[in-house]
Amino acid sequence: MQKPKNIAIVGSGLVGALLSIYLKKRGHKVDVYDRRPDIRKIEFSGRSINLAMSARGWKALKKVNIDEEIKRIGIPMDKRAIHAIGKPVYFQNYGKTGESIYSISRSVLNKKMIDLAEKEGVKFFFNSKVWDVSLPEATLFVGETEKSEWEELKYDIVFGADGAFSRVRHKMQRRSLFNYSQEFLNTGYKELTILPNADGTHKLNKNSLHIWPRGNFMFIALPNLDGSFTCTLFMPFEGEESFSKLKTEEAVRDFFEKYFPTVKDDISNLVNDFFKNPTSTLVTIKCYPWTYWDKAALVGDSAHAIVPFYGQGMNAGFEDITVLNELMDKYNDDWGKIFKEYEKERKPNADAVAELSYRNFIEMSTKTADEKFILRKKIEKWFSDKYPDKWVPLYSRVTFSERPYSEALEIGDFQKSIMDEVMIMEEIETKWNSEEVEKLILKLLDRKP
Amino acid sequence: MQKPKNIAIVGSGLVGALLSIYLKKRGHKVDVYDRRPDIRKIEFSGRSINLAMSARGWKALKKVNIDEEIKRIGIPMDKRAIHAIGKPVYFQNYGKTGESIYSISRSVLNKKMIDLAEKEGVKFFFNSKVWDVSLPEATLFVGETEKSEWEELKYDIVFGADGAFSRVRHKMQRRSLFNYSQEFLNTGYKELTILPNADGTHKLNKNSLHIWPRGNFMFIALPNLDGSFTCTLFMPFEGEESFSKLKTEEAVRDFFEKYFPTVKDDISNLVNDFFKNPTSTLVTIKCYPWTYWDKAALVGDSAHAIVPFYGQGMNAGFEDITVLNELMDKYNDDWGKIFKEYEKERKPNADAVAELSYRNFIEMSTKTADEKFILRKKIEKWFSDKYPDKWVPLYSRVTFSERPYSEALEIGDFQKSIMDEVMIMEEIETKWNSEEVEKLILKLLDRKP
Repeated sequence: MQKPKNIAIVGSGLVGALLSIYLKKRGHKVDVYDRRPDIRKIEFSGRSINLAMSARGWKALKKVNIDEEIKRIGIPMDKRAIHAIGKPVYFQNYGKTGESIYSISRSVLNKKMIDLAEKEGVKFFFNSKVWDVSLPEATLFVGETEKSEWEELKYDIVFGADGAFSRVRHKMQRRSLFNYSQEFLNTGYKELTILPNADGTHKLNKNSLHIWPRGNFMFIALPNLDGSFTCTLFMPFEGEESFSKLKTEEAVRDFFEKYFPTVKDDISNLVNDFFKNPTSTLVTIKCYPWTYWDKAALVGDSAHAIVPFYGQGMNAGFEDITVLNELMDKYNDDWGKIFKEYEKERKPNADAVAELSYRNFIEMSTKTADEKFILRKKIEKWFSDKYPDKWVPLYSRVTFSERPYSEALEIGDFQKSIMDEVMIMEEIETKWNSEEVEKLILKLLDRKP
Repeated sequence: MQKPKNIAIVGSGLVGALLSIYLKKRGHKVDVYDRRPDIRKIEFSGRSINLAMSARGWKALKKVNIDEEIKRIGIPMDKRAIHAIGKPVYFQNYGKTGESIYSISRSVLNKKMIDLAEKEGVKFFFNSKVWDVSLPEATLFVGETEKSEWEELKYDIVFGADGAFSRVRHKMQRRSLFNYSQEFLNTGYKELTILPNADGTHKLNKNSLHIWPRGNFMFIALPNLDGSFTCTLFMPFEGEESFSKLKTEEAVRDFFEKYFPTVKDDISNLVNDFFKNPTSTLVTIKCYPWTYWDKAALVGDSAHAIVPFYGQGMNAGFEDITVLNELMDKYNDDWGKIFKEYEKERKPNADAVAELSYRNFIEMSTKTADEKFILRKKIEKWFSDKYPDKWVPLYSRVTFSERPYSEALEIGDFQKSIMDEVMIMEEIETKWNSEEVEKLILKLLDRKP
């Protein structure tokens, strides 16, 4: 049992809300501040990609017994549905039978989490703009504008759960010896929607993450409970096929006609939404340290914002809380120790999932349409079914496992080196499930570092 | 001839002052703002490493005819003086006969540059704190404190020459698609001094950059005109031998006795200065873009702060101005074009000199004391003297040449791969200047990519 503390969390997003539930259940007084209005009372902004909840996310929810409730607002997706141009849809299972990731609307989940936190007794202060933080004092300065009078709010501990452009981290960044990087992709994204059929059913296979891979760019669709799909167009800002080229209604219509003819007519209000919804950016943020004495810690995107191509942003943030919680069990009231161990344990995993996510854009947008890649996945699956102890595919390690991301990255690279050798075997297309292939893989596996 | 503009420069350091001279000579109105007091009227802070002016620096000074005047406040250093433990001092020439880098005190140079800029008609506003910048409006907001009333100062163009922790860059950083990283070394530094002999002469060889390499840490000394040396101890913050271990007068004395016995007694007020002078940090800062429309541009450390181990920080900043000046000649009043080309041309070179500088810490602190390394340098010099067109050593490419840093890095890596093969030749110690070595190098050079 920890000694009750007076704790402030900056940011009422998914990670902030979940953390507040954990801390409240441990007997702490928890206040959550957010500069934005209460998400439950406003229209959401149309710049969201649906979430894909997987093992790490579920684990963190289960620990505080809210996983079942959240599962009810999600839709299981057990496969990719790949829509290559001029070919039938190709379905590729994500894992073993029964393994799924769950499509959940960010706004629906966020509202739910805030409801659950309030029910626990967490207090939320919306429209409360934190302009400055005194880290050694765990004190927030809140006010109308950056130059207005500020209210001084003293706590024992402050958590920064305020996202990629975190104010709490910003304060840390002014310290010496704070390493920091932000790197934007030249690819941006735009949200679009596919509405349900008249009878409320889904227009596309409901239990799939749909991908229209087109090389430099891609379109994806994730199912919602109401029969709709939340869709995202990922595309470079500049260049041959890019957002900069889609400035007129005609250009947008022609572009979708050319590259996405089979889905174009299902997109609701295509041209309208295209110009109404913002074009958002994608950024990878890394920093270190994540904590300050026993006074402050960053969690989720504020510590490690990643690009969305592995569906791990929220899952990684939730896993931060799992780790923090384990360390609270272990070190009890020694918050300095909890924070030191937390950042030390999480940092290499955050770096690993950042790298995996960055790489996965190429896999999703380009390779999923490639015959060789599909064969490679097929061989991996075949071998893995035969030797489940010897071969867990990278995707499964990241998505359906609770082992560290850094391990997944390392073993994934090793497996890739094996598959590279398999794929250059002569006539691999015909003998892909032969004893020869099996023997080669087994031999190469023995080289394991 | 450019149309006269109203230009503000934030930062009155070396790069800001030099840029102001260039712009004033072109007929622009130039105001320089600095949050600090006039450096000419205060005691300098004791946290400076002496500068090493080399080819790129001199080129930029020469163009505005101030090189001769500056040369008079510098001392040429044509070699390293390497003080390994228990060995006689070893002298290693930096370049060919007649090639030197120049030791110049930062504060002496900075004062001189401001004098020269004022003589040109540049206006300086000291103690003027710039808190915010409107980039699209080229407007500065200046005031007593962050929360006081600010004065609004409208210009046509704003330059950020405000160093590693630039406010102007900070404003750019809040924009989307601004890539940024700051990475601190675990090594810090502290300034110390060796006073002149009673007769005003130098206590050590005057025309050398003195290095006491000790592996993880090192001590260096650069000569001043008045017979003194400005010295720097570079050492990790934490660990076996580190600043964290030197907390008492006794510990400092013992440390210098153990590692720097031959120079210890020459250091003036060792213990006093050690505790009076701050322990400073070393940071590499990278960002992109460096400019905003035709309104704002970063120069020097604000765009590319590097660690000091190649003596190129100021030289790289001055080269920014050389490049800007050439582009002003080329594109005249098209400032948008000038800025776009400037950042495009400079960025890869800034990244290259950052990498070279980072690597050079290892060379200075560890390798200079290593027999193999000294032999390697000797072979390079021998071959280079024989084939000056085929082999310009990396140090000379960086220091005595005006070719791009990126080229130096690339060719340097190629040369290293050749020398790696040479150094593993059997009995290289005895046959280092044989025909066999010469032939091998010539053969390997043909592989040039």
